[in-house]
Formats: sequence, C-alpha cells, structure tokens
Amino acid sequence: MKSIEDYVRTVPDFPKEGIMFRDVTTVLKDPDGFQLAIDLMMKELAGLDFDVIAGTESRGFIFASPIAYLMKKSLILVRKKGKLPFDTVSESYDLEYGSAEIEIHSDSIKKGDKVVLVDDLIATGGTMAASAKLFERLGGEVVRMVFLMELEGLEGRKILKDYDVRSIIKYPGK
Amino acid sequence: MKSIEDYVRTVPDFPKEGIMFRDVTTVLKDPDGFQLAIDLMMKELAGLDFDVIAGTESRGFIFASPIAYLMKKSLILVRKKGKLPFDTVSESYDLEYGSAEIEIHSDSIKKGDKVVLVDDLIATGGTMAASAKLFERLGGEVVRMVFLMELEGLEGRKILKDYDVRSIIKYPGK
Repeated sequence: MKSIEDYVRTVPDFPKEGIMFRDVTTVLKDPDGFQLAIDLMMKELAGLDFDVIAGTESRGFIFASPIAYLMKKSLILVRKKGKLPFDTVSESYDLEYGSAEIEIHSDSIKKGDKVVLVDDLIATGGTMAASAKLFERLGGEVVRMVFLMELEGLEGRKILKDYDVRSIIKYPGK
Repeated sequence: MKSIEDYVRTVPDFPKEGIMFRDVTTVLKDPDGFQLAIDLMMKELAGLDFDVIAGTESRGFIFASPIAYLMKKSLILVRKKGKLPFDTVSESYDLEYGSAEIEIHSDSIKKGDKVVLVDDLIATGGTMAASAKLFERLGGEVVRMVFLMELEGLEGRKILKDYDVRSIIKYPGK
C-alpha cells in the first residue's frame, strides 16, 4: 500500500531556483491519495470539541471543505484582501519581499467559538499566525491547526508556539 | 425547513455600485446550508459516468473538493497562470476590462477521460468555456458543468451551449 508521502510530487526549482516545491496536485488527482489525505487530517481532529473550520486561500479551501462537510462544522474562508463582500477584519503579515493582507468576515464566528485552522502546508507560519489573530480578535479560540505537509527547516512552529500544531508529512528541509 | 436560496446573502454594490453580489460564505458558514448545497450539486451528477472533477480557482475548489472525496473521483485544479509547478496548458479569456489566463497541469487527465466542471457561480461563462477548452486540448470530454448559482441575465449558457449545464439557484438578473 502506498503511504501518503508517495502521492506528493516534488518539483525542483519552482517557483525559483533552489526551491524543492511539494506539489499537492498529485495527491488530489488520485482518489486513493485524496481519501487518505483527508482521512489522516480528520484523525488529528478526532475527539476534539470545536465549532468552526477555517481554510486559507486558496489551497487551504481544498482540505477545509471536505472536513467541514464530513464533520458537519461551520466552514469559514480566510481570503486575500478585497475578495470578501461583507464587513471584514484584516491582518497583514511579512513575506520574503514585502507584505500581504488577509481577512475574514466580521460575522464569521461568535465570541467563544472554537476554531480549527487548516492548510495544505506550513512553511514560515506567517499566514497561519495572522489567521489565528483574526479569529482571536473576534473572540474565538484557536484550538488546533492541521496541515498536510510541514517544511521543518522553515521553523513555522516557532511563530506558532502557542498553538496545537499537527502535520501529517514532515520534510526536514525548506 | 430552509431552502438553499435562504442561505445566500445578497450584498449590494460589491465589488462596485449597482452589482448585487451573491455571497456564498453564508452558505458555507451554516453546516446545514453547506450539506444541502453539496448534496444538491451531487444530485446533478447521480448516475453520470465520469472520471474527473475540476474546480476553478478559488471558490470552485470549495465545491469540487467534497464532491471528489465523496464520489471518489480525481480532483483537478484549474488555476490562475503561474500557480501550478509542473508543465501546463493555458487558455486566456476576456474580462470586462482586459483578459485573464488559466491553466491546468498537462498530465491532469488521460485522453478520453470524462470531466465534470464545478464552480460556485456561472456569470458570463467565460472562465468555464476556457476551462472546458483546456481539458479538450488534452483529449478529455466535458460531460457536465454544475454550478450552485446562475446569474441568468448574463447569459452564460449562450457561450456554453455545447455543454450540459446545471445550476441549483437561478437569479434572473445580473
């Protein structure tokens, strides 16, 4: 039987030279791979008391959505600035060059809601730290973060040290 | 019991004055609304012979993903130019101002694969027509298109007249 790692394709030099890009599209493309990925991520949520699953634009949507459906939870979108039509709260965070801004609708959650953040990959953790702050500003509690892949060399867990971070596939490099 | 229409929030004047924006985030946020949306979309695929579900960046991912998981189909991402790491085929299409380009991985499908395209909304149909062309260039057959919402006033069905187009919620206007 194939393990989840076997479904990931590594593409060298994308988006620039020296980067080994972990391509999740080969996981999605194989129905067995996708079932396994979702099932392993859901296992990390077994027995956890929570209300909301938040997916980060745009690959986070792919994983948050079936989990929200299957576990009957509220699905909230964390989007790039300017895409959400209603009142929002936003946070900016640093990128390698410059910065980016993400937001959620102000009425995404109720005060006291327990929130799980989901994404395909944890790299530096910057996006996830900003996402968590958004929900906390609305009175939510981020009770877990679940990733399919983790680039351990980028030390995203450092910036996320106050959170319960789970990942399925761990790559030692960057 | 609430009908699927009741879960959609209409936001006036977004992204610009005069547009009535159909906000799907309120469907996703309510677990009953999201279950209903996915179940109604899957009903449009009952009994259909197909291999692949394709979701269009980025709200299309939210609907294509649980359907692919539940129906055990291959999930393929149609992305904006430059986001996919491997060899791609791309198509450009016209927007109100200027144009845009979308692409899929060249190895997304096998020749003869039957493809279903999924998105949250059909407006002018331009993105979907370009998506369909991408799969056809790789030898695929687009056997159905399923949308949660349709803006009938924009006449997307005209440009998609060669396809089997299904939508759940029909808005007469633009």
